[in-house]
Amino acid sequence: MPTPAPQPGEIPGSVLLREIREQPASLARLLEHRDEYAAVAKASSPYGSKLVRLVAHGSSDNAASYGVYAFGLLPGWTALRDSISLSVYYGADTDLHGSCVVALSQSGQTPDVVEYVERARARGAFTIALTNEAASPLADAAHEVLPLAAGSEQGIAATKTYTAQVAALALLAGYAAGEGERVVDGLEEVTSLLADLIPVLERRLAEVAVALAFVGRMFVIGRGSEFATAREISLKLLETCRIAAAPLTATDLAHGPVAALDGLFPVWTIASDDPLLPAVREAAARVHAAGATLLVSGTGAASIPDAAYYVPVPKPTLPLLAPLLSVVPGQLLAWALAQAKGLDPDRPDGLTKVTLAL
Amino acid sequence: MPTPAPQPGEIPGSVLLREIREQPASLARLLEHRDEYAAVAKASSPYGSKLVRLVAHGSSDNAASYGVYAFGLLPGWTALRDSISLSVYYGADTDLHGSCVVALSQSGQTPDVVEYVERARARGAFTIALTNEAASPLADAAHEVLPLAAGSEQGIAATKTYTAQVAALALLAGYAAGEGERVVDGLEEVTSLLADLIPVLERRLAEVAVALAFVGRMFVIGRGSEFATAREISLKLLETCRIAAAPLTATDLAHGPVAALDGLFPVWTIASDDPLLPAVREAAARVHAAGATLLVSGTGAASIPDAAYYVPVPKPTLPLLAPLLSVVPGQLLAWALAQAKGLDPDRPDGLTKVTLAL
Repeated sequence: MPTPAPQPGEIPGSVLLREIREQPASLARLLEHRDEYAAVAKASSPYGSKLVRLVAHGSSDNAASYGVYAFGLLPGWTALRDSISLSVYYGADTDLHGSCVVALSQSGQTPDVVEYVERARARGAFTIALTNEAASPLADAAHEVLPLAAGSEQGIAATKTYTAQVAALALLAGYAAGEGERVVDGLEEVTSLLADLIPVLERRLAEVAVALAFVGRMFVIGRGSEFATAREISLKLLETCRIAAAPLTATDLAHGPVAALDGLFPVWTIASDDPLLPAVREAAARVHAAGATLLVSGTGAASIPDAAYYVPVPKPTLPLLAPLLSVVPGQLLAWALAQAKGLDPDRPDGLTKVTLAL
Repeated sequence: MPTPAPQPGEIPGSVLLREIREQPASLARLLEHRDEYAAVAKASSPYGSKLVRLVAHGSSDNAASYGVYAFGLLPGWTALRDSISLSVYYGADTDLHGSCVVALSQSGQTPDVVEYVERARARGAFTIALTNEAASPLADAAHEVLPLAAGSEQGIAATKTYTAQVAALALLAGYAAGEGERVVDGLEEVTSLLADLIPVLERRLAEVAVALAFVGRMFVIGRGSEFATAREISLKLLETCRIAAAPLTATDLAHGPVAALDGLFPVWTIASDDPLLPAVREAAARVHAAGATLLVSGTGAASIPDAAYYVPVPKPTLPLLAPLLSVVPGQLLAWALAQAKGLDPDRPDGLTKVTLAL
């Protein structure tokens, strides 16, 4: 699917910005489907699974990183980002009875995700497709389909699909834990916080972008449930701004990459006000000591000293939902920085919306 | 632990090079302990686990990525790199009966890995420590200890510990599958191939390094069991050469990062002669089309057209053991490139051998 030609009068980045702004509406639409999430959580229970296999590529795989924490902290289950290679290409002979598969694909067309689901179902797993497209090969392959309800996404860089996937995983994990209503309440609050936050962040990230216009590489640090955010922010900056941005956990940084830092190698630190904050604070101190520019975002941003830029977000009642807020500064930096660098984030080189091959 | 001062007359990088060269001897020492691996595999069987939780940081975590494939392809078990955050910092309430934990730490001292093992044991898991230090907090915490037998590692950048960990995981998975002797034979062959290969690669990578001396960022692509190699090569280049090197699967590349490529952004592609080769070949073609310089290594290197540099390695009888060979070009590029850039890989800024904090 080639990238469509720009329409006359179209402003570069306008598709990306429109979809970033649509996120509160997209999350509200997802919540209209809450009963379907409750029903699928119930349907999975006779399978007795406490092992969730998440399968996805790209942004969807970043959302899957969040799922590890949603299932781990709500029902106390083990969730893993399963290897598609092991099943589809190497044909590993693993018995999947007692596993629940959650396959994430915006389009429902990613070929090896579809093939993974077909194989997992044949090997005894209960399979769920999480997709924008109820009529798709992935939806056909799985036992159950859950709608993302993000609406058609035109931007090459996924934004509202990513947040819908994160919210959907929290919702499914919440119902699996018998705490669906608490998660619904939390998501309603986050939706409202997000609507107020986006205009503020648009202005703030436009300022930050000017200062970062000549950056060619960056680390993005997060840990725990914010590691998903670090991965997603890195991917946005890579695909729209040609920045070699790499996600790291706060601890990974100390195990080697800190040696690469200098004044031209900024580090984005996502600091959540949660039990990992001391580890993130220590990592940020090492970054500062190495002479690198520090940009701090997240619900615990104010606890990190010595940053050149602060982009705090409010703390939701349910801390597990913070990643829905903390990813938005990254989406908006991708939008603003692309423009500062003279790139069109709606038309990155060499990318198409649906990756059919590989 | 501060980095020791250089001894009079010491050549920069000589510690790293010596330990790279020691790898065949280190693997031979590991094989002397084969009976201990067989015994621990047997001891784990009454626990009935087909779920292996690998826990580690840094290079050891890269080796854990390999473990996913070793356990998936030999006994057909599911192995995952478990979240230390979920257990140690968030206190997730997950029942671990029926799980087998394999904790990897060169020093046996990494505090949150030790704490993970203590908690997992209390929650019902069977726990194994894989370490160079039989007298260490990690060894004390676990049910069983398996020696890496790599010998004391002085280099800040782990090399012989990494290959010993990869071999140890293959050995343990082999005995768990009842195929220990076949894996031992395979490891003996690889040890011998490695002894012949290292001198050839030393000369080859010294040539390649000259051409890459001005590189500041790089992607390293691998997929399947070679994704561990891509992660480990990236980390070596980051910590010794200050290159912003990021590991990607061949498929991840197509989902965004390809947009960042240009002539100053080389891509190292690890091509294994295995069922994933077509996907890796297609990713390499996209890299070439984007105008980026392509460096190709691995057992399937000759199948990838249009590379600027080829660094092939021989194909072992047991294809699962190829990562023991394919990581060495990365170790040697780290050594040669650091020198071409005027850096001392034995003394990277801000790093110490044992990461005690975070």
